[in-house]
Amino acid sequence: MDIKLAVVKGDGIGPEIVTEAEKVLDRIGELYGHTFVYTDILAGGCAIDATGVPLPEESVEIALQSDSVLLGAVGGPKWDGLPGSMRPEKALLGLRSKLGLFANVRPAKLYRALADACPLKPEISENGIDLVIVRELTGGLYFGERGRKDGGELGEVAFDELEYSKMEIERIGRVAFELARKRRKKVTSVDKANVIETSRLWRETMHALSKEYEDVEFEDMLVDNCAMQLVRNPAQFDVIVTENMFGDILSDEASMTTGSIGMLPSSSLGSTTRGMYEPIHGSAPDIAGQNKANPIATILSCAMMLRDSFDLTAEAVAIENAVAQVLNEGWRTSDIMDENGKLLGTREMGDKIIEYL
Amino acid sequence: MDIKLAVVKGDGIGPEIVTEAEKVLDRIGELYGHTFVYTDILAGGCAIDATGVPLPEESVEIALQSDSVLLGAVGGPKWDGLPGSMRPEKALLGLRSKLGLFANVRPAKLYRALADACPLKPEISENGIDLVIVRELTGGLYFGERGRKDGGELGEVAFDELEYSKMEIERIGRVAFELARKRRKKVTSVDKANVIETSRLWRETMHALSKEYEDVEFEDMLVDNCAMQLVRNPAQFDVIVTENMFGDILSDEASMTTGSIGMLPSSSLGSTTRGMYEPIHGSAPDIAGQNKANPIATILSCAMMLRDSFDLTAEAVAIENAVAQVLNEGWRTSDIMDENGKLLGTREMGDKIIEYL
Ligand SMILES: CC(C)[C@H](C(=O)O)[C@@H](O)C(=O)O
Ligand SMILES: CC(C)[C@H](C(=O)O)[C@@H](O)C(=O)O
Repeated sequence: MDIKLAVVKGDGIGPEIVTEAEKVLDRIGELYGHTFVYTDILAGGCAIDATGVPLPEESVEIALQSDSVLLGAVGGPKWDGLPGSMRPEKALLGLRSKLGLFANVRPAKLYRALADACPLKPEISENGIDLVIVRELTGGLYFGERGRKDGGELGEVAFDELEYSKMEIERIGRVAFELARKRRKKVTSVDKANVIETSRLWRETMHALSKEYEDVEFEDMLVDNCAMQLVRNPAQFDVIVTENMFGDILSDEASMTTGSIGMLPSSSLGSTTRGMYEPIHGSAPDIAGQNKANPIATILSCAMMLRDSFDLTAEAVAIENAVAQVLNEGWRTSDIMDENGKLLGTREMGDKIIEYL
Repeated sequence: MDIKLAVVKGDGIGPEIVTEAEKVLDRIGELYGHTFVYTDILAGGCAIDATGVPLPEESVEIALQSDSVLLGAVGGPKWDGLPGSMRPEKALLGLRSKLGLFANVRPAKLYRALADACPLKPEISENGIDLVIVRELTGGLYFGERGRKDGGELGEVAFDELEYSKMEIERIGRVAFELARKRRKKVTSVDKANVIETSRLWRETMHALSKEYEDVEFEDMLVDNCAMQLVRNPAQFDVIVTENMFGDILSDEASMTTGSIGMLPSSSLGSTTRGMYEPIHGSAPDIAGQNKANPIATILSCAMMLRDSFDLTAEAVAIENAVAQVLNEGWRTSDIMDENGKLLGTREMGDKIIEYL
C-alpha cells in the first residue's frame, strides 16, 4: 500500500516524537510491503512563527490531499499571550473542522507493567482500566457563535452558543456503538440532561439509537457523576460517548487515572477514512530537544491509524505487541521510569520498539 | 440569638439526616444560648407528590423570610421520568436563583481517620486533600436561554446559551479571594480560555481582580488540566474558583477523591447573610428509612451555616471538633465503615456527636 501522510511535527517535543513514529512506520513498511510518504505541514506555534498564522491555507490543502494526518503536539507558553484567534490551539480546531473530524476516540488503558504509576490505589486499579472515550469533536461550545456585548450595569458580557443537531448526535453515537461491538459491548452516554436542552436532545437521540444496537448494553450517566465514577471505579466503563466539552474534561481525567499519559494515543475521524492521529499529551516544552520525551503515545497513534484508516490490522497489532513487550522487559522513558526500569531516551525507545517488531 | 430556618427535608434519606442535624443545632442552642426555629418547606420530589410542582411559591416565600435554609437531599428515580421543568432538580435551581445564591462553596477534605477510603494511593493522599471549590451558581449554561429549533436536514436542533457578565465573574471571584485569605492564600481560577469567549472574559476579570489581592497567590488553569490535577496531586490546591458547569463537574470529582462524600457539606450564599446549606451527597433512595444514612455532611453543613451566615465561630468549631473526635474514636456509619470501626446508625451517630459537643 502507498500511504501519503501529512505530518504536523509541531512544537516542543513534537518533532522528536514524530521522528520516532516515522521510523517505526518505515520499518512496518519494509516488513509488510508499504510505502509511507511524509509531507510536513506547518501548524501551531511553529506556523505562527514562520507565517504569522496558526494554520496556513497550504497546510489545510495538503492535509486534505493526504490519506491521513499524523500530529506530534502543538502549543507552548511562548504563544500563550496571543489573542484567541491567533493561538496554536486554533490549528487543532481548524484541522478538526476543515477535515470534518467529528469523532475523537481516546482510549485510556492501564498497562500492567506500568500499574505502579497509576494514581489510584491497587484495590481499584487491579480491576483494570481499559475504556475509550468517544468525544464529539466538531460541535458544541467549541464551534458555536461567540462574542461580547455591552451588559450595561453588569459590565461587559461574553457569550458562547452551545448547539447540537440530531444528526450530529446520531453520527457520533453510531461511532460509539460500532466501537463497543468490537470491544466489551457496553456504551455509557454522558450528558447533563437534568439541566441543559442539548443534553436532553442528546439523551433522546442516544436512547433511540440504542434500539438499533440491542446487543450492546446501554446506560446514560450525568457528567458530574461520571467525573466521580472515573475515580471510584473506572473498570465499570467500556465505551463512553459524550459531547465536545464534556469529552475534553472527562478524557483528560480518564487518561490521568492511568498514570501514564505519555502512553495514550488518539484518533479523530470523520466520514471518510482520512483521520488525524496524535498523542493525547501536550508539547512539554520543558523537556523539548533533550531526547527525554516518550514517543510511545505517538507510535501507538500510528497503530490506530493503520487499523482505523487503512484496515491494516496485522501491522497495528505488530506495533502494539512490540510496545507491550518493550514495557514488559522493563524498558522505560523517564516519564514512566520506575525502580527496576531500564532508562531509554526518545531515540533509543524508538529503536527498541523497532527491534521488537 | 434567635434563628429562623426554612428546612427542606426533601426526599430519600433527606428527612433522617436533617432530623439529626436539627438535634445537633438544638443542643448547640442549649449550650450557647440560641434558639432555632424550623419551618419545613416542600421542595423536590415530595413537593411534586404533594402539590404537583417541584417548588411551590409558598416554599420560596418562607425561604425568603427565613434567616437561612437547611436542605437534606432532593430527587430520586421515582421522578426521573418527568419532563425537565417538573423534575425535583428544578427545586434546587429555583431556590438558588430566587434566593440569589450565586456562590456555592464546596470543601473537599480528607479526614485522616478516613484516609483508607480515599481512592487515591497513599503516596498521593498522604499529602492531604483540603481544598475548596467556589462555584458560580446562578449563571452560565444553567440559567441561559435554551430551546429547540428545526434544523432542516440535520433534524431537530437544541441550543443552550452560555453567558457571563463581568459583574457576575467579579463577585464570585471576590468570594474566592476572601476565602483564600482565611485559608492557605492561594486561588486557582479554572476556565477554558483557549476556546470559549466566556472563559476569556472570566480570565481577564480574574486577573484584574487578583491585583487587589496581592497577598493571595493566583494562577489560572484550564478545566481539562484541572480535571487531571485533581487526581494527580490534589494537595496543590487551596481555593478553586470556576463557572457553574465546570464547578459542577470538578466539585464532584474532587469530593470523590476524598472517598467520603457522606462527610462533605456545602454552602450557597448570595449578597445577604441568608444562605442555603446542604450535604453534597444525594438522596440515596436505596437506603432511605433504614437508619443507615450518614448524617455528618448535613451536620457539618450546619457548622458552615453557623460560621458563614451567623458569625458563630465557636459554635461551628464545636461541631467540627465533635465530628473529628467521633471519627478519631472509630465511630462510623456504614458508608465509611472500616476494619476497626464501630458501626452506628443515623440516629446513633447524631447522638454520639451531641455527646462530644
Ligand atoms: C488545545 C485544546 C483546544 C484541545 C481541546 O480542548 O480540544 C485539547 O485540550 C484537546 O483535548 O485536544
Ligand atoms: C441536581 C443538579 C441540578 C445539581 C447541579 O447540577 O447543580 C447537582 O448536581 C449539584 O451539583 O448540586
